[in-house]
Amino acid sequence: MADPRFFNVADPITLGRLAEIAGASLAEGADPDRTIVDVAPLETAAPDQISFLENKKYLSALAETRAGACLVHPAFVERVPQATVALACDAPYRGYALVAQAFYPRQGNTPGVAPTALVDPSAIVDATVEIGPGVIVGAGAEIGADCRIDANAVIGPGVVLGAGSSVGACASLSHCLIGQRVAIYPGARIGQDGFGFAMGAGGHVRIPQTGRVIIEDDVEIGANVTIDRGATQDTVIRRGAMIDNLVQIGHNVEVGAGSVIVAQSGIAGSTKLGEFVVLAAQTGLAGHLKIGAGAKLAASSGVMRDIPPGEEWGGTPAMPIRKFWRHYTRLMKLLDEKG
Amino acid sequence: MADPRFFNVADPITLGRLAEIAGASLAEGADPDRTIVDVAPLETAAPDQISFLENKKYLSALAETRAGACLVHPAFVERVPQATVALACDAPYRGYALVAQAFYPRQGNTPGVAPTALVDPSAIVDATVEIGPGVIVGAGAEIGADCRIDANAVIGPGVVLGAGSSVGACASLSHCLIGQRVAIYPGARIGQDGFGFAMGAGGHVRIPQTGRVIIEDDVEIGANVTIDRGATQDTVIRRGAMIDNLVQIGHNVEVGAGSVIVAQSGIAGSTKLGEFVVLAAQTGLAGHLKIGAGAKLAASSGVMRDIPPGEEWGGTPAMPIRKFWRHYTRLMKLLDEKG
Amino acid sequence: MADPRFFNVADPITLGRLAEIAGASLAEGADPDRTIVDVAPLETAAPDQISFLENKKYLSALAETRAGACLVHPAFVERVPQATVALACDAPYRGYALVAQAFYPRQGNTPGVAPTALVDPSAIVDATVEIGPGVIVGAGAEIGADCRIDANAVIGPGVVLGAGSSVGACASLSHCLIGQRVAIYPGARIGQDGFGFAMGAGGHVRIPQTGRVIIEDDVEIGANVTIDRGATQDTVIRRGAMIDNLVQIGHNVEVGAGSVIVAQSGIAGSTKLGEFVVLAAQTGLAGHLKIGAGAKLAASSGVMRDIPPGEEWGGTPAMPIRKFWRHYTRLMKLLDEKG
Repeated sequence: MADPRFFNVADPITLGRLAEIAGASLAEGADPDRTIVDVAPLETAAPDQISFLENKKYLSALAETRAGACLVHPAFVERVPQATVALACDAPYRGYALVAQAFYPRQGNTPGVAPTALVDPSAIVDATVEIGPGVIVGAGAEIGADCRIDANAVIGPGVVLGAGSSVGACASLSHCLIGQRVAIYPGARIGQDGFGFAMGAGGHVRIPQTGRVIIEDDVEIGANVTIDRGATQDTVIRRGAMIDNLVQIGHNVEVGAGSVIVAQSGIAGSTKLGEFVVLAAQTGLAGHLKIGAGAKLAASSGVMRDIPPGEEWGGTPAMPIRKFWRHYTRLMKLLDEKG
Repeated sequence: MADPRFFNVADPITLGRLAEIAGASLAEGADPDRTIVDVAPLETAAPDQISFLENKKYLSALAETRAGACLVHPAFVERVPQATVALACDAPYRGYALVAQAFYPRQGNTPGVAPTALVDPSAIVDATVEIGPGVIVGAGAEIGADCRIDANAVIGPGVVLGAGSSVGACASLSHCLIGQRVAIYPGARIGQDGFGFAMGAGGHVRIPQTGRVIIEDDVEIGANVTIDRGATQDTVIRRGAMIDNLVQIGHNVEVGAGSVIVAQSGIAGSTKLGEFVVLAAQTGLAGHLKIGAGAKLAASSGVMRDIPPGEEWGGTPAMPIRKFWRHYTRLMKLLDEKG
Repeated sequence: MADPRFFNVADPITLGRLAEIAGASLAEGADPDRTIVDVAPLETAAPDQISFLENKKYLSALAETRAGACLVHPAFVERVPQATVALACDAPYRGYALVAQAFYPRQGNTPGVAPTALVDPSAIVDATVEIGPGVIVGAGAEIGADCRIDANAVIGPGVVLGAGSSVGACASLSHCLIGQRVAIYPGARIGQDGFGFAMGAGGHVRIPQTGRVIIEDDVEIGANVTIDRGATQDTVIRRGAMIDNLVQIGHNVEVGAGSVIVAQSGIAGSTKLGEFVVLAAQTGLAGHLKIGAGAKLAASSGVMRDIPPGEEWGGTPAMPIRKFWRHYTRLMKLLDEKG
């Protein structure tokens, strides 16, 4: 059970309602009015908790679970123990995510502006917004309904934040327009100058960076991430993209809708990612590249050229991942033989 | 045109004045009193805007530009369309940078201390300084003329900031002396303890870090960068160095004048970089190395030994880049053949 | 000598007391009441300062030192110059660390809550705690004796901080329980949501992260580090672990006691490190791995599988380091020959 100092679990939910939430079918004969009080992993779930099976390598854990209910793929309904009610659905993990959100709704907002916050009189702040202590909101900023700005965050002049978005503690935003339901984590830096200058032996000359950062709806930006504003164009993060901690996004970059960028990856200036691109952790992308929709990069890759849609690449310099592993196998054989 | 919510463009500037600013020669017959209102890329520039050509791969964009004026190398003056006034100079990108700075001067400072800032009575703060809301300035700190300290930044006791420097939102400085016209971006961490301790099975014992961070004039320090103070010596960033976001600089490191360190690179303790060294993104340097003046490291390199001045290296472990690519070509051939 | 603007050296200490502190034997005939005023490297130490020799490659510096006293291994006592008093001990660097701590004790705390700090009335804050300006302490948080919370840091609701711990400027903590004598550096982010969601073409669905971060005693967490809270389990950092700047630690990770994680390394979700593991800089660990006690990873390694206790690995994908270097040597030979 989640530590009650930090989390409030919602009221119990009936199996019937949970099936609805997850888009699952309740096993025949199961009582739709039976209540469940929490989510839990298969190993620790109690008879009043619900769990899930996504991967068949956990079938043995399923066999021994004491969970009161379990989300499973239809193919595995037969494997659910008798004392556990099966909720069958095609994407059990997704179903679990929805159910878990029902038990643990995202931290809401308590409308109001903390006395030690400083909101510029020209800022337009919806009455439902929660603004934490020490927060600064600059001139002309607009904060939409139900936003939550956590302690000591800084919202620069003119910044726009759509309804239902949140900004974590000590984050800072400038020169950016943020959509709805965007979650920005603590310490993220959005909208500062890009790294652009004319190099010269007599000293480098800064190029004014006069673009913005545009973040569309439903994006998440991890802790201590840095997203620079564009040089003349904008830096754009499209709808539903998920960005993990300590990621660097250079000026003029475009991240496609639904893309997933894992921790400590970096994208150099003007590179464009299509929809649903995945960059595993610590990936580096050179500037001015095009990464096709659905492309996937293995962890620690260093990418120096365009990648066609749907391909999986890895290594440094990155190449198609099958080629990478074929090469790797041959190389190991070669080097081991040479001994 | 830059979003007026975030940027104020300066008043129109005459071609004559722009040529002066860029160090360029105005095409014969051009009217030096004609005014230009903004900068723009070749593709989008309007007849009252100025653009530039740095790289001949954009000659086709030049051919089709509607820009009122264009900075170009003398060799390409002939290629400038008739309706566009050529401004010839040897370094058009540098000229453009200077012109763009004239249209978009760096954010100035509005002298004054925000009511919610807390400046220690023993701190010496010039009357022209702007100190934002929530800023903390510690005992004995000295802030020179025309500095700007943004919201919620923390300037530790005794820290010295030279004239014309700026500190971004939520950045924190301690144990450091900062020169003039230094730009420190949001969330940068300067002057905390270096990572020094005597390891032991009974527990590691911290070594007090009693050096400082010295940052010379005209340096830029990116967002969420970390620069540790020295152990007994100082950590030093020399004049004009440009440091991108999320870079780590260990204790006792010296970064040479004019060096450029791209995002997410890291430099381990006591390594010294000469002047005008370039580390491309995600480079890692081991400790106690000497990197010669003008050396360049390819992105994602891992450097384990000294590099002579002027050489270009890459790979992990890093080697001269030509050797790296020769090896790479041979290796690909070898591994492809083996199939 | 350390800059007095930033550091206060303690009163002079007698050789007898220094020997006690370091666990060293004073050379026969040396005056135990002679006082020493500071620590310094061999090269610059004056006759009233104490230095150390850890590595025999500095024997020539020892020969020329003017230090009044020097911590050395018993094997090198004979090499100490006549004017320098030898303090013999098995671990001179550790002895030096202890002596340096005596001259430069960690910054203490000046009990009291700054007027611009905001401590929730329900928080339990020991009377000896120092809370800096702009600090926010949330509802129900508990701050133990002698803690120091620096300017503009944010301590979330319910967070527990053990006695003698410190939190750097602009750091933020939530959903975590912190032990005693833990040092958290500026800008560290502890306890935010882990990166967990069910991916789907219709949009990713967040999994509520209902675990915590548990940090045991004597841990150090570097500047701008990010440590996510667990998904259902906890993320745990065990006693005495040292974590350098800009490290990323994913949800459910466990870092073993005394482990050392150097800058910019990243550990993906659910990976477990045994005791005294060392990750050199920029190492990346995939998720769900087990890294055995005492294992060491070379800088820039990319680890994709479990590592047995005590082994040293390197490369990407990582392999035993001896094999890595054997392969490397053969490969260089092969590629050089092929020319």
